Amino acid sequence: MNIKINTRTEKDLLGNKEIPDNFYYGIQTFRAVENFNLSNNKLNQFPIFINALAMVKSACAQANFKLNHLDDNKNNAIQYACQQILDYKYHDQFPIDMIQGGAGTSTNMNINEVLANIGLEHLGYAKGDYQYLHPNNDVNMSQSTNDVYPTAIKIGLITAIDQLNTPFENLIQSFKRKSEEFSNILKMGRTQLQDAVPMTLGQEFGAFATTLQNDLNKLNQIMPDALSVVNLGGTAIGTGINTEVKYRELAIASLSEIMQRNISSAPDLIEATSDMGDFVLLSSLLKRTATKLSKIANDLRLLSSGPRTGINEIYLEPRQPGSSIMPGKVNPVIPEAMNLACYQIIANDLAITLAAEAGQLQLNAMEPLIAFKLYESIDLLGKAMKMFQHKCIETIRANAEHCQENVDNSIGIITALNPYLGYETTTRIAKLANETGQSVLALIKAENLLSDQILADVMAVNNMVKPKQSV
Amino acid sequence: MNIKINTRTEKDLLGNKEIPDNFYYGIQTFRAVENFNLSNNKLNQFPIFINALAMVKSACAQANFKLNHLDDNKNNAIQYACQQILDYKYHDQFPIDMIQGGAGTSTNMNINEVLANIGLEHLGYAKGDYQYLHPNNDVNMSQSTNDVYPTAIKIGLITAIDQLNTPFENLIQSFKRKSEEFSNILKMGRTQLQDAVPMTLGQEFGAFATTLQNDLNKLNQIMPDALSVVNLGGTAIGTGINTEVKYRELAIASLSEIMQRNISSAPDLIEATSDMGDFVLLSSLLKRTATKLSKIANDLRLLSSGPRTGINEIYLEPRQPGSSIMPGKVNPVIPEAMNLACYQIIANDLAITLAAEAGQLQLNAMEPLIAFKLYESIDLLGKAMKMFQHKCIETIRANAEHCQENVDNSIGIITALNPYLGYETTTRIAKLANETGQSVLALIKAENLLSDQILADVMAVNNMVKPKQSV
Amino acid sequence: MNIKINTRTEKDLLGNKEIPDNFYYGIQTFRAVENFNLSNNKLNQFPIFINALAMVKSACAQANFKLNHLDDNKNNAIQYACQQILDYKYHDQFPIDMIQGGAGTSTNMNINEVLANIGLEHLGYAKGDYQYLHPNNDVNMSQSTNDVYPTAIKIGLITAIDQLNTPFENLIQSFKRKSEEFSNILKMGRTQLQDAVPMTLGQEFGAFATTLQNDLNKLNQIMPDALSVVNLGGTAIGTGINTEVKYRELAIASLSEIMQRNISSAPDLIEATSDMGDFVLLSSLLKRTATKLSKIANDLRLLSSGPRTGINEIYLEPRQPGSSIMPGKVNPVIPEAMNLACYQIIANDLAITLAAEAGQLQLNAMEPLIAFKLYESIDLLGKAMKMFQHKCIETIRANAEHCQENVDNSIGIITALNPYLGYETTTRIAKLANETGQSVLALIKAENLLSDQILADVMAVNNMVKPKQSV
Amino acid sequence: MNIKINTRTEKDLLGNKEIPDNFYYGIQTFRAVENFNLSNNKLNQFPIFINALAMVKSACAQANFKLNHLDDNKNNAIQYACQQILDYKYHDQFPIDMIQGGAGTSTNMNINEVLANIGLEHLGYAKGDYQYLHPNNDVNMSQSTNDVYPTAIKIGLITAIDQLNTPFENLIQSFKRKSEEFSNILKMGRTQLQDAVPMTLGQEFGAFATTLQNDLNKLNQIMPDALSVVNLGGTAIGTGINTEVKYRELAIASLSEIMQRNISSAPDLIEATSDMGDFVLLSSLLKRTATKLSKIANDLRLLSSGPRTGINEIYLEPRQPGSSIMPGKVNPVIPEAMNLACYQIIANDLAITLAAEAGQLQLNAMEPLIAFKLYESIDLLGKAMKMFQHKCIETIRANAEHCQENVDNSIGIITALNPYLGYETTTRIAKLANETGQSVLALIKAENLLSDQILADVMAVNNMVKPKQSV
Repeated sequence: MNIKINTRTEKDLLGNKEIPDNFYYGIQTFRAVENFNLSNNKLNQFPIFINALAMVKSACAQANFKLNHLDDNKNNAIQYACQQILDYKYHDQFPIDMIQGGAGTSTNMNINEVLANIGLEHLGYAKGDYQYLHPNNDVNMSQSTNDVYPTAIKIGLITAIDQLNTPFENLIQSFKRKSEEFSNILKMGRTQLQDAVPMTLGQEFGAFATTLQNDLNKLNQIMPDALSVVNLGGTAIGTGINTEVKYRELAIASLSEIMQRNISSAPDLIEATSDMGDFVLLSSLLKRTATKLSKIANDLRLLSSGPRTGINEIYLEPRQPGSSIMPGKVNPVIPEAMNLACYQIIANDLAITLAAEAGQLQLNAMEPLIAFKLYESIDLLGKAMKMFQHKCIETIRANAEHCQENVDNSIGIITALNPYLGYETTTRIAKLANETGQSVLALIKAENLLSDQILADVMAVNNMVKPKQSV
Repeated sequence: MNIKINTRTEKDLLGNKEIPDNFYYGIQTFRAVENFNLSNNKLNQFPIFINALAMVKSACAQANFKLNHLDDNKNNAIQYACQQILDYKYHDQFPIDMIQGGAGTSTNMNINEVLANIGLEHLGYAKGDYQYLHPNNDVNMSQSTNDVYPTAIKIGLITAIDQLNTPFENLIQSFKRKSEEFSNILKMGRTQLQDAVPMTLGQEFGAFATTLQNDLNKLNQIMPDALSVVNLGGTAIGTGINTEVKYRELAIASLSEIMQRNISSAPDLIEATSDMGDFVLLSSLLKRTATKLSKIANDLRLLSSGPRTGINEIYLEPRQPGSSIMPGKVNPVIPEAMNLACYQIIANDLAITLAAEAGQLQLNAMEPLIAFKLYESIDLLGKAMKMFQHKCIETIRANAEHCQENVDNSIGIITALNPYLGYETTTRIAKLANETGQSVLALIKAENLLSDQILADVMAVNNMVKPKQSV
Repeated sequence: MNIKINTRTEKDLLGNKEIPDNFYYGIQTFRAVENFNLSNNKLNQFPIFINALAMVKSACAQANFKLNHLDDNKNNAIQYACQQILDYKYHDQFPIDMIQGGAGTSTNMNINEVLANIGLEHLGYAKGDYQYLHPNNDVNMSQSTNDVYPTAIKIGLITAIDQLNTPFENLIQSFKRKSEEFSNILKMGRTQLQDAVPMTLGQEFGAFATTLQNDLNKLNQIMPDALSVVNLGGTAIGTGINTEVKYRELAIASLSEIMQRNISSAPDLIEATSDMGDFVLLSSLLKRTATKLSKIANDLRLLSSGPRTGINEIYLEPRQPGSSIMPGKVNPVIPEAMNLACYQIIANDLAITLAAEAGQLQLNAMEPLIAFKLYESIDLLGKAMKMFQHKCIETIRANAEHCQENVDNSIGIITALNPYLGYETTTRIAKLANETGQSVLALIKAENLLSDQILADVMAVNNMVKPKQSV
Repeated sequence: MNIKINTRTEKDLLGNKEIPDNFYYGIQTFRAVENFNLSNNKLNQFPIFINALAMVKSACAQANFKLNHLDDNKNNAIQYACQQILDYKYHDQFPIDMIQGGAGTSTNMNINEVLANIGLEHLGYAKGDYQYLHPNNDVNMSQSTNDVYPTAIKIGLITAIDQLNTPFENLIQSFKRKSEEFSNILKMGRTQLQDAVPMTLGQEFGAFATTLQNDLNKLNQIMPDALSVVNLGGTAIGTGINTEVKYRELAIASLSEIMQRNISSAPDLIEATSDMGDFVLLSSLLKRTATKLSKIANDLRLLSSGPRTGINEIYLEPRQPGSSIMPGKVNPVIPEAMNLACYQIIANDLAITLAAEAGQLQLNAMEPLIAFKLYESIDLLGKAMKMFQHKCIETIRANAEHCQENVDNSIGIITALNPYLGYETTTRIAKLANETGQSVLALIKAENLLSDQILADVMAVNNMVKPKQSV
């Protein structure tokens, strides 16, 4: 078979290359695809990031236009092309591996080339006729990968965090609803896996909601603002070489308008060019949430353990048969998958840490891995939260009867008698209960240690789940 | 040899034990010392933490006194004992290993026992006469390890962070002074270790100051407030069992007064009892700073590499002979030690992450490791910053001549001609310069590509280190 | 639009489901696809692993056949189906996410269902007519996920390691060729980035070959044997429930034959069911190699730094233009991409460690993440090595002239005079050379410290790159 | 108060310093103590390592003596001094922080200075009279830190591993004894925390022994041999500068004799000088063991959970009261402390990985952290194993009655009926049992699905814990 593919000739520092005519990307993207075949993840799997690149390019072109460095025609063509990207029409034109050398230059050239060729066609020229709209001279005017790329990563992450809010908030609400549903179910609290003192199942699920709400609040309080401070205009190393004094301000104003939020310039552009601090912080917050979610998943697996030889205080709705050999077995597959997702996010934080530490002098060449892992972690976290809510939390039911039996049967309730009998006497009774299997109540009555009325009042389990009214 | 040690008999759940009479700690501390002999680090190596325990105990006793559960006499004795601790008179009485099981109970009983015995002596009784002042019934009244211990960890960390401010701020100021000192030294910036475009050495050192200032600001903005929200009053699992309704408020008010800062109660005490989120966040911020400091140390080692076969743009003051075999060799030992300290802090963050994820149900039994590693990281970071400033940064000198030669000799300055000649022409010239060894200026003149005046203006290196004035 | 899809009804513990008729997988795979949508990585991206599952299934069926539990007809159908898988004809029928709950049950049921349906068609029945060939009763006979899944992971990893040998060995050979090519190029060695003593560039590249060879040897010595010890026959928890005494031996004998290598049974099947030790060890070895490769990539980036303001001892062939703004700039993109790949592999090791530690009682529910990350790491490592060799190492050239200048200009060569002049005198001369910029040779001659003949002999650089002949 | 300390004046590259006369270490050690005050861990806390340094020094001196570079007198003095170190008489003379810059030079000079001064006194000279025995010219003759230091780390680690064998083997034997003790106690196995099929408690404890035995075997098989290949004789960068051809062979022969084991020379000394691969591998093996021990500790905490609301299959002997507020509460403090130790070891592995990756060109300047963390991990692991055995494993008792109840009450035993009734029928029965709370046996009898005799035979729990005899 002999398929004829029409090509155009493109040229760069290294020489010429034939580029299939239907490709909107050009020679530099082509080389990057040839160079990097490493992961199973390509730029086009992260549409938020591609859109962010288009937004930054749009803003820069507007600034160049306002400063009369880009004519009306070219600016219009670039603006049109950016809008096409934002309309998801050319996302397949971003084929480069997320694991790429070059500190993002390939990614920046990918968007430059695609925008130039969309723009050229819009202007009535053929793809590759770069004398009419040049990827470097026009689309990349006043820009360097080193300011455009980190800026786009940050801008895209703001959107990604914004989108993460939905599954995050929904999951919290789901825990809150369960907290209310379970508010009257008494159960034993456990510390160090040993019986402690009573609480309600509602309190337990409420704590899951609270701890996640704290994280969502922290994420929203800290990150969007931190990520809104960008190094756009710093160009190659932060000195702003090849920009005019007013350019940076104009570009950032345009970007603010596009984003509909206040984007500002980093006060020290040399620092901002190589600094990965905000990415490390974001990854840390994601890791913190992963740590909490993994703990919650562990708790749900513990509480639903059994059914007959475990704790068995809650039921998880079956999602799939649990065994190819053991009939009727059902496993907590959704919390387990949540654990796995959390471990992945924790491991991604290490990849990001390693990459951040490896920055040298005026740039961090490892930034592509940081971008990759951050977008991956947020994507994974959002999907895992959605799964957790819909396929697990929503349908959890309580085993109220067993919870109550555990309380009635417990030794830990003797704690409430401490203020009346002292630590030493209660310790003796507890030990006796443990050894004989008797109930602490029976033992106290047998020894006549407290009047029946006081005993009844103090040992009312409902009183144990909150502080006592002062007398 | 036959030394006679007087002892007293103490008793607990497990039985009796002879305790040497000169020990202020009692049977439970004694058991913990017997149980845990693991690391080389004991409680007494972290005086800030011991003091924090004393502050919490003082606050709780005051609340119990106000609620008439503790009489004047006992409260005075406890207050006296706490002050003795704060005066560093009994820190040697905290011998327990920082790696301990029991979720901090041993630590809590250590302070309970020491305070009781100091108090007993103050009241005129013998150590061990606990009927007059009891470690559990009196000193630990209305308290559980599970609220006292995390509260004290947090309170102590606020102080530790406060103390860290001094070396942190001093280091930043040191970089700032160097930035001013080097503000007129032109040098080549480097991206991906390849020659890029000019900058000043002052800009480079200024970026070090900026990036650390960002971290110090973040630390101060986020952590003291986060750590000021405590679970005191939640007792065993956050339900506040064995406390009166007003107790929590009173105890926290006392603690605020002692700390001279606003301490507040966590809104969800069940959550706050087991949550390690603030510790994970603090560790993440320390890790972020470690990542940055390690990058700075790497940069200083690169910039001072040579002296004859490396970059050699700065001199580090020799601190010790560099080799047992190579005469005259001097090594960058201080930045190297900074790298090691940073790796340790990054690794500590993993230990803390592992411990935080391992919490189960109503408590995190791994909290002692979290406390250990956080205090260790802050201590190490402070010492390393002090070393870095005094033994390295302060005395760095520039090799101005070599910096200037590098600029004059560079190809990267051609970047400034992009807006005049276009990316393709400048690429061709750069390539030619690289291949022939000629200067880019000579090649441009030879080809008559720009008038001498424009060329002189554009190529003025001083103009390259900042944006151009708009025309 | 109204597309009619024919379906069949399948049933499991949870109820009925309509399965499109063209799917070879059935209801349990279907549920897993619905449950887990987390990563961008599906089972079908790891063909080696799918083939390993087929090999294990083939071996088990043969054992069941020999024990007369499976009739000739059914066995033939299963064997046929396994061969179809091994011929890559149905790999698209494995759509489950690599991040999955259920400890691999979904994966095991996926292969069970696909084999059953291929077999059914082969026998002339329709897909889904499981009474003639049942995914559980026949294909999974005498098996549990908990023995089949870990066994298949191990078997597949043996093949993956075998395939990794090619790029690994090729990379080593490439370094060796360079070592020979550069064997006469004298250069300065550097310790702690400071000038040390002379060596050849050949020695430097030879060390890269040696250090990788050590790793390849270790990998081959340790892992295939370790991975050849499997828990097949242990079924659910290692007790071998639902197997006959002879089954295990027969199944493993068949597997050995299929694999053409000696597979053996773990002596303690309870232990082998939950143990992840071999996976942790394999990941550790991959991490070790990643650590070395990252160091080598760093070295190549250092040695090629410049070209004018760096070390500039070697040239890396340009692979793509290095900057969207700086003309003529070329970056070490291939070593950089190698660094990123290495960080990913190091981070994967953490994910595997977290998952391994999380095993509980008789099983490790986190095994799917371990499988995912191991196959990913090996795949990535192989691709990265291939890239490194072909796009970087092969075409490295030496800058011999500059290397020689560095030696001639160095102070470190004075080390060779230690045995003649003593450490103190040489230290004094070295310090003087450093301060005055003079050559050490000139200074020694000026002070008349050694006869010209001895000096010439000792200072012959060629003599410095190896031990002296004894006198 | 005015204490007069006699001092001697010492001199190095940087100038003069007054050294207190009673110090056996000299100026370079003194500078290192001044430079590095970072961790709480000093060289003198690792006596095995100090002894290893002395052994290497002894071996080198013997080689120099045999080659007639060191006279009889000096050699005797050095040999005497080394023996004094090995007799633990001067370990307090090693005050340098384990976190030190300089790639070990300070440590090497510390041993050089101490040996010189011990030797000088032995020869009848005063400390500091280095013209008669010089730290560099004599003690360090033919050596560099860069070969002596890694060699000593390795030699010391061989001893440390050797010593670790005792608590490691003892712990394994302890698990084995428990396995035999519990060999007749039937219990339910659990996968994914859900009831699975029966096993014996002896099998469970036997698996702990097996999995640790595998690790001990791997450690002993791999590491001592790997660590016995040293770079001694390579001096500064592996070229062997300042050594004679025969020196290396002689030094290593002496070292083999001292160690009473076969030490050999690395075939590529350039590689061996900077390579940290063996240390990474050792740390990986320690991490693997930590991962397993942490899993075992988790299992013991699960199995002993309760006593009344948990799994409660085993009793852990109480080691200390478990709560300051809850009377009678006992916690699994020893397994918890084991978890903490394991997290520390896992985190140390990250520190070692970071340090190993950071090597540059001909040396790894981060080696001191690697040495520190390896010795710390081995020390901690040994202590934790000893604690685990003596304070936990030895005294574990089974709750046989409750174990049996769990089996009798379980649904999982229906698995054994699969081969008779098929997966679908057993699934239906299991589901029914779960919903109705009835026993599976009763349900099968009610439906008359199997003859009583077959049922009795198949459902004999004792038959379920191993494969069936073939018919």
